[in-house]
Parts: sequence; C-alpha cells; structure tokens
Amino acid sequence: LPRTEKSKGRSENDLSSRELILRAVGELMAEQQSVDVSLSEVGKKSGLNPALVNYYFGSKSRMMMELVLEAIGPSVKRLDELLEMDIPAEEKIELHVKAIVSTFFDYPFVNRLLHRVSRTDQGQFAKELADEIVTPMHKAQRQIIQQGVREGKFRDVNPMFFFFIVTGACDAIFHSRYALRHTFGRKTISKKLMSEYTNEIVEMVLNGISA
Amino acid sequence: LPRTEKSKGRSENDLSSRELILRAVGELMAEQQSVDVSLSEVGKKSGLNPALVNYYFGSKSRMMMELVLEAIGPSVKRLDELLEMDIPAEEKIELHVKAIVSTFFDYPFVNRLLHRVSRTDQGQFAKELADEIVTPMHKAQRQIIQQGVREGKFRDVNPMFFFFIVTGACDAIFHSRYALRHTFGRKTISKKLMSEYTNEIVEMVLNGISA
Repeated sequence: LPRTEKSKGRSENDLSSRELILRAVGELMAEQQSVDVSLSEVGKKSGLNPALVNYYFGSKSRMMMELVLEAIGPSVKRLDELLEMDIPAEEKIELHVKAIVSTFFDYPFVNRLLHRVSRTDQGQFAKELADEIVTPMHKAQRQIIQQGVREGKFRDVNPMFFFFIVTGACDAIFHSRYALRHTFGRKTISKKLMSEYTNEIVEMVLNGISA
Repeated sequence: LPRTEKSKGRSENDLSSRELILRAVGELMAEQQSVDVSLSEVGKKSGLNPALVNYYFGSKSRMMMELVLEAIGPSVKRLDELLEMDIPAEEKIELHVKAIVSTFFDYPFVNRLLHRVSRTDQGQFAKELADEIVTPMHKAQRQIIQQGVREGKFRDVNPMFFFFIVTGACDAIFHSRYALRHTFGRKTISKKLMSEYTNEIVEMVLNGISA
C-alpha cells in the first residue's frame, strides 16, 4: 500500500481503538457501578491490549479525564445554543435541568468519575474540569438567571449557590444508589423515574427562585 | 491491682484508643480532602499501632463505617426531637436543612465516605447505612411534609424526590471542592459561606414546595 493510504488506515484504526477503550471503560463502570476499573478488565472488555491505554492516553487517570470530557462535553457545547434561543428564562431552566439529568442517566458514573478525577494527580485535572465544564455551566446559568430577573420572573439568586443546589439535586438520585435500593426499594432508575424526578427538580427550582 | 479495677482501667483505655483512631482518621480525611487514608498514616497520626484498627474494628472498611455512624448518628437521633417540637413544618424544614449542612461542615468527608462505604464489601454496609441514616431521615421528612400539607403550606411533594433533592443540594458545595476553588475562587468554606448557602437552600426548598 502507498504510504498515505496506509497511514490513513492506521489513523482510522487509532481512532476506533481509542473509542473502543473509552466505550469499554464506560460500560464497565456502568455494570460495576464503580469507577474502580482495572486495565486488565478494560483489555478484556474491549478485546484490546491494556497497554494501549498508555499509548493513547498516557495514563489511566488521563483516560478517565477524557471519558468525562467526552460524556459531558457535548452538553456543555449545547449551552450556547440554549442561551441563544428566543424563549423565556423559565423554559431555559427546564431544558437545562433536563439536559443535566439526561447526561447522568446516560452516563451514570460521570459525576462520580468527575469527582474522582478532580482529586487525582494532585489536582492536575481539577482546573481543567472546572474550566471545561463547571465555568461554562455557571456562566450560562448566570445569564439565564439574569434574563429571568429582567423578565420579572426570578429573584436575584446567587448563581454560585444556584449552581451547587441544582447540580447537587440532579446528581443525588444517581449518586445514592444504596439509598434508592434499600430505603426506597428501587433497584434501577427507569426512564419514568428519571422523568418524574426531573419534573420535581424543575418545579422546585422554578418555584424556589420565583420573584 | 484487683482484677475489676484493672479491667475497668483497660476498658477505659480501650475506649479512648478506639476514639483516638477514629479521630485520627477523620482528621486525615479532612486534611487530605480524600477518604483514601492508609493504616500507616492512621498509626502515625494517632500515635497508636496500626494493627489496633483490626483489633477494634475488624477491618478498615468497618472502621470507616463506624466513623460515618459516629458522625451522623447524633443528628439522626435528634430527628425525633425535631418531630416532637410544637412548631410549624416550615421551621422544622429550616432546622433540618441547617442540621444537615452543619454535619457536612463539621465532617466534610462524611458524605463522600458514606458513598465509598456503601460501595465497599459487596454492599455489605449499604443496607446498614440505609437503615441507620437514610430511612430515619426519609421518615422524618415525610412526616414534616405531611404536617406542612395539613397546615396548608406545602404541596404534596414526593418524599423520595424531596430526600434526594435536599440532601443532594446540602452536599454539593462540600462535594465539589474543585468547582468551588477553580470556578468560584473560594479555597475554603467559611462559616459565613456555609450559613449563606444554608439560607439559600432553605429559601429555595420552602418556596419550591409551597402550596
């Protein structure tokens, strides 16, 4: 094969191996309900040599970081579209809360992983996570709150507190599986449960910050 | 020394060594902002032989379990007093939220530890934690909500959702230290910040579930 075609082929394989690894890690975390997955498990699940983790990511913690960014990144990018929409602030809050809960539903391990990664490598990733995920969310939320205040619908709530209360509420049902199972008798989070939980958060938050 | 006095003496020493170990673990977790403490660190910090952990607790995970129960237990017991008080449901919610945030403030590692312990030992502790902490909280919250509904103040909010939203909100600022530091520029949670955050949760929750 000519050199260019060969490198093209390899580059496509590279991409898909990288993706295969990340997908395997995500699936393992979902299955085991734990972010403690070993490289040998990742190798088995993906059918690839565990050494490829270092080849593609440099380290296991960087691999977990990439997984977080891939899971949450698209939602963070869609925040700009949300801000541009010509709808009342109340509807923006509703869409925003639904997007957060959907992300945790689709990637149940993401928030736990996010906290884990933020504490590893002497906080090397903490700033990156804040810059890539938290700060854009905070800025978007602040804008939506300001819009709601201008529309006479919201009180002038502290956006930092808003961020922690809303994201903490969205995360809690996913984070406290043991409580869901043993106190409330629910073994899994169905789409219906997720949807009802989301509606309750939206109602509580919208009433909670109403002017 | 007569036998009784000697055993009395040893039993008091036992008690205080056990307490010294738990205190050392708590302090290490607070200092390192991580629940990953090694037995040798515990030994250094407490001035005791790390082997005493197994002597007193049987295992490291049981020791962490005991630490969670000691930290949260008193607040859970005070729930009965709260329920008995002759005050409106709104005030009970306020006192309850303040108690939760205070516990996280006094023991910043507790919630993280709670989740960690609930996932260790194949869920051996998950049911115990739910029974000892979550179920009593849920029952108390359900009673307070019912009281507020009778008083015409609260809508009939789902107590399970209420539990996750409120505890998730209370926990979030402690849980997301990296966000607090890098997005919001706060290195520590002061008493003032804690108090303002608590007030915002109370306001959002009370408005959020108002009839």
